[in-house]
Amino acid sequence: MQRVCFLLKVRRDRIDEYRARHAEVWPEMLAALSRTGWHNYSLFLREDGLLVGYLETEDFERARAAMDETDVNARWQAEMAEFFEDLDEAAPDGAMRPLTEVFHLA
Amino acid sequence: MQRVCFLLKVRRDRIDEYRARHAEVWPEMLAALSRTGWHNYSLFLREDGLLVGYLETEDFERARAAMDETDVNARWQAEMAEFFEDLDEAAPDGAMRPLTEVFHLA
Repeated sequence: MQRVCFLLKVRRDRIDEYRARHAEVWPEMLAALSRTGWHNYSLFLREDGLLVGYLETEDFERARAAMDETDVNARWQAEMAEFFEDLDEAAPDGAMRPLTEVFHLA
Repeated sequence: MQRVCFLLKVRRDRIDEYRARHAEVWPEMLAALSRTGWHNYSLFLREDGLLVGYLETEDFERARAAMDETDVNARWQAEMAEFFEDLDEAAPDGAMRPLTEVFHLA
């Protein structure tokens, strides 16, 4: 099982709406994440919009690729893209670059 | 169970040493963390020194207070303090301010 952590930056003027959208993620999106191996997946937001993602999965590249094949992810990521700063990828999930784990205690 | 995420900033010129120290955390420190309720605790490091901590615990303030009562934590945090930028607390663990969780999928 891999533990994955990534960072994104939510636009300051969209933070409230981002938070509201994530309180009501589409059930179909949640089901697709679970089915493609995104487990114990949390998003944390700092006041300035810095977003931390954490999840556990067998293989992050495979989990991301499996989500990428779903229609619901394409629709979700298209709607989410405008919430983020400095995306150098077309969609937010493409910009999820894992940080290096330097410590773990079970 | 609370999921806790916090951010700290490791000094760029100390990143390699910080990483090396965390590959060899004192067994006594690991035992104290487990005993005081720090579970599934990971640290992730970005190239520029931004450090993300993630853990699961019954009650973060209680877990932090319980660690604060141990001698080993006082010794560890005193040695770690010099690795961090902009600590406005005396010790790194005092500067662990949890971010807001905006999404979770089990």
